[in-house]
Amino acid sequence: MTYSAGSYDVIVIGAGHAGCEAALAAARLKCRTLLLTISLDNVALMPCNPAVGGPAKGHLVREVDALGGQIGLNTDKTFIQIRMLNTGKGPAVHALRAQADKQLYQQEMTLTLETQDNLDVKQAIVHKILNQGNQVSGVQTHTGAQFFAPTVVVTTGTYLRGKVIVGDVQFPGGPNGQFPANDLYYSLKELGIKMGRFKTGTPARVDRRSLDFSVMNEQPGDDGPLAFSFLTEQPVRPHVPCWLTYTNVKTHQVIHNNLHRSPLYSGIIEGVGPRYCPSIEDKVVRFADKDSHQIFVEPEGMFTYEMYVQGMSTSLPEDVQIEMLQSIKGFENVKMMRPGYAIEYDYVEPKQLEISLETKTIQGLFTAGQINGTSGYEEAAAQGIMAGINAALLVKGEAPFLLKRSDAYIGVLIDDLITKGTQEPYRMLTSRAEYRLLLRQDNADLRLTPKGRKLGLVDDHRWKKFEFKRQQVEEEIKRLGLHHVTPGDKELEAYLFSLNSSPLKKSHSMAELIRRPELDYDLVKTFAPTPDPLHDDAAEQVEIQIKYEGYIRKQEEQVKRFIKLEQRRLPTDVNYDDIKGLSREAQQKLNEVRPVSIGHASRISGVNPADINVLLIYLEQQKRGFK
Amino acid sequence: MTYSAGSYDVIVIGAGHAGCEAALAAARLKCRTLLLTISLDNVALMPCNPAVGGPAKGHLVREVDALGGQIGLNTDKTFIQIRMLNTGKGPAVHALRAQADKQLYQQEMTLTLETQDNLDVKQAIVHKILNQGNQVSGVQTHTGAQFFAPTVVVTTGTYLRGKVIVGDVQFPGGPNGQFPANDLYYSLKELGIKMGRFKTGTPARVDRRSLDFSVMNEQPGDDGPLAFSFLTEQPVRPHVPCWLTYTNVKTHQVIHNNLHRSPLYSGIIEGVGPRYCPSIEDKVVRFADKDSHQIFVEPEGMFTYEMYVQGMSTSLPEDVQIEMLQSIKGFENVKMMRPGYAIEYDYVEPKQLEISLETKTIQGLFTAGQINGTSGYEEAAAQGIMAGINAALLVKGEAPFLLKRSDAYIGVLIDDLITKGTQEPYRMLTSRAEYRLLLRQDNADLRLTPKGRKLGLVDDHRWKKFEFKRQQVEEEIKRLGLHHVTPGDKELEAYLFSLNSSPLKKSHSMAELIRRPELDYDLVKTFAPTPDPLHDDAAEQVEIQIKYEGYIRKQEEQVKRFIKLEQRRLPTDVNYDDIKGLSREAQQKLNEVRPVSIGHASRISGVNPADINVLLIYLEQQKRGFK
Repeated sequence: MTYSAGSYDVIVIGAGHAGCEAALAAARLKCRTLLLTISLDNVALMPCNPAVGGPAKGHLVREVDALGGQIGLNTDKTFIQIRMLNTGKGPAVHALRAQADKQLYQQEMTLTLETQDNLDVKQAIVHKILNQGNQVSGVQTHTGAQFFAPTVVVTTGTYLRGKVIVGDVQFPGGPNGQFPANDLYYSLKELGIKMGRFKTGTPARVDRRSLDFSVMNEQPGDDGPLAFSFLTEQPVRPHVPCWLTYTNVKTHQVIHNNLHRSPLYSGIIEGVGPRYCPSIEDKVVRFADKDSHQIFVEPEGMFTYEMYVQGMSTSLPEDVQIEMLQSIKGFENVKMMRPGYAIEYDYVEPKQLEISLETKTIQGLFTAGQINGTSGYEEAAAQGIMAGINAALLVKGEAPFLLKRSDAYIGVLIDDLITKGTQEPYRMLTSRAEYRLLLRQDNADLRLTPKGRKLGLVDDHRWKKFEFKRQQVEEEIKRLGLHHVTPGDKELEAYLFSLNSSPLKKSHSMAELIRRPELDYDLVKTFAPTPDPLHDDAAEQVEIQIKYEGYIRKQEEQVKRFIKLEQRRLPTDVNYDDIKGLSREAQQKLNEVRPVSIGHASRISGVNPADINVLLIYLEQQKRGFK
Repeated sequence: MTYSAGSYDVIVIGAGHAGCEAALAAARLKCRTLLLTISLDNVALMPCNPAVGGPAKGHLVREVDALGGQIGLNTDKTFIQIRMLNTGKGPAVHALRAQADKQLYQQEMTLTLETQDNLDVKQAIVHKILNQGNQVSGVQTHTGAQFFAPTVVVTTGTYLRGKVIVGDVQFPGGPNGQFPANDLYYSLKELGIKMGRFKTGTPARVDRRSLDFSVMNEQPGDDGPLAFSFLTEQPVRPHVPCWLTYTNVKTHQVIHNNLHRSPLYSGIIEGVGPRYCPSIEDKVVRFADKDSHQIFVEPEGMFTYEMYVQGMSTSLPEDVQIEMLQSIKGFENVKMMRPGYAIEYDYVEPKQLEISLETKTIQGLFTAGQINGTSGYEEAAAQGIMAGINAALLVKGEAPFLLKRSDAYIGVLIDDLITKGTQEPYRMLTSRAEYRLLLRQDNADLRLTPKGRKLGLVDDHRWKKFEFKRQQVEEEIKRLGLHHVTPGDKELEAYLFSLNSSPLKKSHSMAELIRRPELDYDLVKTFAPTPDPLHDDAAEQVEIQIKYEGYIRKQEEQVKRFIKLEQRRLPTDVNYDDIKGLSREAQQKLNEVRPVSIGHASRISGVNPADINVLLIYLEQQKRGFK
């Protein structure tokens, strides 16, 4: 029996990293929002590695934060170690990565949801998406509750027809011993949503008492006051080390000896796994010439002795897992607390989505996160906030909020997904962003906080803080362009000499000096101090903007040129078969993807520059009333 | 495929309140112990009310603590409110009750397990008990791991073939969205274990923001430094209030209108429910003359807005649950976060057990907790520690550790279970203990800590603390018997007058004065202070022992007389059909139960005093070699 259980503006299915951001965004945009989760005890669960951030992923976290999202703040409140990676390279690839305390992370996020205005959180398994024709109208739970809403955001992660596999053992299940979401699959199918099958995996968790850390390399966090959120001043958190060790010839031999028992190679696993996060058996087979792979041993939290064995993801039988682990240096007496496993799940082919993450065929139905074929908590969170925002905007009758590839990694992520689709779990990489010098993690606030403010997601506190920083940076850059130093200053000469910097031969602005590779903002602190010293973040920003000004300006010009094209919108009701001059393949693909803009069309594989020219001419003709 | 995964002395299946105590006790007794749990994230889960203790249950907690168990300490570290109940009544029924922070409770207990020497904790679903004939030899998990041990303690709670029921919706599952333990049922059955079916239930969890506490009665905790454990000096914990409200005529009407939809009355639920914790629909039907029932609204923890609705346990359909809740004062706008549900599960008929909680038919196989037909975290913990101790003693080849009915509530609990069995989920009640004036919660340490010390469960710290208190109490009682006051002390006269106590007419010992109902140990503090004031616990003990000396002595004599009989052991290989003079029913029951002692035999229903006399004569004859 069913019953009417209430009406909302936005319903979010799933309280993982996508669902939490979606629900918070919608609620903060004043939509009456309902978040449904299979288990209230598993909100914001990290079923895989206990970490947030890393290359490109850290960028996503800061972007979500800059828009007013939660993942950054929540990580800052609960991490047990934080590091800035790639500091030896340029600022484009600097990346924050934190070790998370899994339990605290969940606890903190649960409380954030529970205290959010306009948001109800309920435990229920959704059996059915309700619809009226091609308009979504709500959801129905396994206990018969019908909740109504004009928008529904589906964020089922790996739960959709989830199947857990360890060697020859397999059973239906979500991650980490949860129930799978089976009925929802059939409901989505009935709505005409095309789905594929992926798999992902996770390594064993081991007892820290059984490891010998004295033969591993300690991996401490950074000492400085690092944090993901632009709001966090000085996180008061512990700093717990991780440990580095390696697989060896013996480990690889164990794997080779047991490959016939791997569900990956025996055909039990049908889903496609993540290329950039392969299982150890996959690595050993694909990189047969390598005798060793890195293994990071990471604590799962402050209040548990469970350790995560990063790099040893596997679906080999349990006895093989133990043998493999025992062969690793420091793991000779290892005690396994949970075995590794693979999980197969259904995902929605993302080409079916608009840039807003709304499905093209069912109005008001959005999907976000791992269900869209991505991997990673950060990719999930990024899609979550976008889907939540766009569901809210749809309810309000406002135009969708879209981020371009030149605005944010979020823009790259979504554009890649909806344009190219994905044949394997998609992971964000710095190399996917063509404008990565602009899309730095350090300037995510400058890029996105004004947009978040306009949406209504950035509160006064964040806005004031942001405005202050922006103004400081602007003024300081201006000041340093005007502040000149001349030859003859003994102290400065000595300073330059000490850093192997050539002596002044004429008057230079501070900005000019900072551009020298061997100099940085420290110079300013000593020789042209401001009465109110800049916060480290602002100083870093000044330095980067000055040092890389040339490159940045060049990339900005590229963007401007491209945007001219990018922004030319294509009507969505056009039949591309009617446009003469397009290649047959382009007609097919364009009809399939239905791009919203020239930029969008240009990135469809099979649509080549000649086709784009045809489209531009077509648009010109349309503008002039010519049909 | 199976593989050999290691050998242990004791394997415990399940990490609920029974399993945790069993594993900790065995490990602390230096046995190599393995604890297996379906989910490492659900250790010490409280799927029902967020509370520990209460009448008789609080006694059990203190007894487990006095023996060196964990439930008391763990509660003290994590509670959010604590109260002494029934302080208006005699000390036999004083009872501690704490509101638990569910998350913290789990977190703390998980860490305790993980850091315990000799204990491995692993996540696995046990599919099979391994045996060699009638001797247990280990377990096999769903991923094929075989762990070997001469003793196995099964503590499956409500997981054994668990089925969750909400109205007409039912699905296999353990409590709180967990997987059920299905295969284990068939394994136990194959071993010849007889099982029955019980059900229990839990109420909805609601959003605290949706309640109007201003129309409810606040239920604060006590201010004093109360704690369960005799080790806890001064718990540093928050004090969060609960709230009292009531069902009313409308609530009852909603239930009556929907009784036809109740799985309890429609026949969907076959298992027998707990008499002392009935569902609200059961209460409304059974006590049809009552217009109102108490409802306690209890926080589930410090870091969640979920509230537990104590007294509203139900398996009615979800829409009825909402209607019911909305009818309650302060609940008009209630938002339900999780619906209430019933859970049906298999239990082991406890008459199949020895007093040690070992099964009679399979050597080394123990069962403890809810699987033995009890309800309640405290009953589970009590059996858990006993099963853990006895498994360890069996491994060491030592005699089992047994508690008599006159030793502890634990003794009453186990004796009731194995002698009478239970036709419904068994709950400990003060009225079940015939020697309840002896078995007070305040003297659980005096009763049991020496036994725990002898076992090896009481460490030096606890033992020193205990010895100090015991000595203080003894010396103070002696002193107060010798310290006399005589008429003429003006101050004392005034004090007595102020308390309506008759004036002294002759010399009295302090002890004599304390026995007056209107006086207490405060008298001593003023008129016969010790140089080192007694700790509150010790002072309370002195007062109770002096005040109730007569009653206590009388009950002790009853015990002594009974123990003489109680202790006369019966051979377990006797065929009662051969003993002439026994009634036919007694012969049957005695052959079935196989009591270990006369005391045990005397409490078997159907074995009457005449039969006991026959047995006593039989034992005399045996002693004299007469057959």
